[in-house]
Amino acid sequence: MTPQELAHACAAAMWREDRARAALGMHLERVAPGEATICMQVGPAMVNGHGICHGGYIFTLADSAFAFACNTYGERVVAAGASISFLRPATLGMRLCATASERVRAGRNGIYDIRVEDEAGQAIAEFRGQSRSLGTRFFEEAP
Amino acid sequence: MTPQELAHACAAAMWREDRARAALGMHLERVAPGEATICMQVGPAMVNGHGICHGGYIFTLADSAFAFACNTYGERVVAAGASISFLRPATLGMRLCATASERVRAGRNGIYDIRVEDEAGQAIAEFRGQSRSLGTRFFEEAP
Amino acid sequence: MTPQELAHACAAAMWREDRARAALGMHLERVAPGEATICMQVGPAMVNGHGICHGGYIFTLADSAFAFACNTYGERVVAAGASISFLRPATLGMRLCATASERVRAGRNGIYDIRVEDEAGQAIAEFRGQSRSLGTRFFEEAP
Amino acid sequence: MTPQELAHACAAAMWREDRARAALGMHLERVAPGEATICMQVGPAMVNGHGICHGGYIFTLADSAFAFACNTYGERVVAAGASISFLRPATLGMRLCATASERVRAGRNGIYDIRVEDEAGQAIAEFRGQSRSLGTRFFEEAP
Repeated sequence: MTPQELAHACAAAMWREDRARAALGMHLERVAPGEATICMQVGPAMVNGHGICHGGYIFTLADSAFAFACNTYGERVVAAGASISFLRPATLGMRLCATASERVRAGRNGIYDIRVEDEAGQAIAEFRGQSRSLGTRFFEEAP
Repeated sequence: MTPQELAHACAAAMWREDRARAALGMHLERVAPGEATICMQVGPAMVNGHGICHGGYIFTLADSAFAFACNTYGERVVAAGASISFLRPATLGMRLCATASERVRAGRNGIYDIRVEDEAGQAIAEFRGQSRSLGTRFFEEAP
Repeated sequence: MTPQELAHACAAAMWREDRARAALGMHLERVAPGEATICMQVGPAMVNGHGICHGGYIFTLADSAFAFACNTYGERVVAAGASISFLRPATLGMRLCATASERVRAGRNGIYDIRVEDEAGQAIAEFRGQSRSLGTRFFEEAP
Repeated sequence: MTPQELAHACAAAMWREDRARAALGMHLERVAPGEATICMQVGPAMVNGHGICHGGYIFTLADSAFAFACNTYGERVVAAGASISFLRPATLGMRLCATASERVRAGRNGIYDIRVEDEAGQAIAEFRGQSRSLGTRFFEEAP
């Protein structure tokens, strides 16, 4: 398997194990070693009475791109922590995309930066995730 | 209105404007000036195939306690940012409670600490939120 | 040794190994299991041309209180990361005190909150530190 | 003035107002709009008895690169907050370089990422800074 094929195989395994993301209407647009893009539309259940999307859903979208990006090397990796800055409100009906890129991996730890944008490419939020490898693998042998 | 009555009135207004939290099964247990506790059960839509709750839902619970705690003074306040550390996994069926307390308010900015615990009082996550006042109020006059 | 005696013994060992903090004029006011207070005066080398203290020195003071607080149980613990919010400027001649308290310990990880205040008790900065135990100890046997 | 000339003029003004950074042996290697690189050698006053550099000095170096990077547009900008992850220890005699790049600017707020590396290009720390514009300028007219 090439690194790109491994990244795809890990993403496929994660998607199979987890229908929560699909239930929120998330769509995996792209995955590559250390990178992922996931998009989602802001639905009625995600907004308050003023039509503003809850920060929790923006976090969840960014966190998902983070999870797919750090799980592209065959090892199972989890989020140890994250921070998010909310830059502009997201509103009902908006299509948001979260793009994760790897900042660094050192030992079992990694740092990933995720930007959440609207359709016009305006930054809605910036997220930084700290990952930690569990030391287990997705596949015992080549899938 | 006493500060406690004002905190209750703000919480009631926020709850009316927003059915997203109720849809997740969140329940406001307690609110006081600068403080709030919200509880939620980890449901099937919140977990992956291994029964582990997504970090996004834990964040959302903590973020909600944060929102109620900082909106207890009559002024409308939003989240500017937040960070979270995931300490132990939460699993399907667990009842989680998030308790927010105010660390500091300085000008239009505030910092709130939120602990998410399981029924046994074990820490699941620690969240720190940065709030920013919008400069508008919940009630033009006494409600 | 009682927990309080152990906290003191660890602090004494750390102080002996490290003259950098003393060189900055830091003074350890108090130490107890999971807690520490360190004070420091803002000196001429710490300020810019407008007399405002650099954030780096405020961070260093808070980080020191954090280090003493998390190293009170006999195990050697290091900082894995930290975040800081700057709330008010500190100025030349001000005496700052950083007070660290333990938020949680879970396995090898811990979270500590440190507030930096001026003489009047006004918050200058809020710091949150993530600690990680090295698995080694200060003393092979009782010191 | 071109944007690059303005970035240089701001950096020169900051350097003139502030001898604290020079006192730590910091050297501004490069500045451009939204970017800066500052280097520093780990000196004897910065280490503990085991020769390990204090986190506070690593923070201070990163914070300085951050300050120069966000103050390149003519407006005066300060640090509202920052977070840092310590990835590898820095030791006595090591030459560290901090490189700041702009992640986003939105209204008066900005986010900058700063990597601290050793001579071999290994990551020592990753820093993320939140900036806030003061609304004042470095130069009333072209300097």
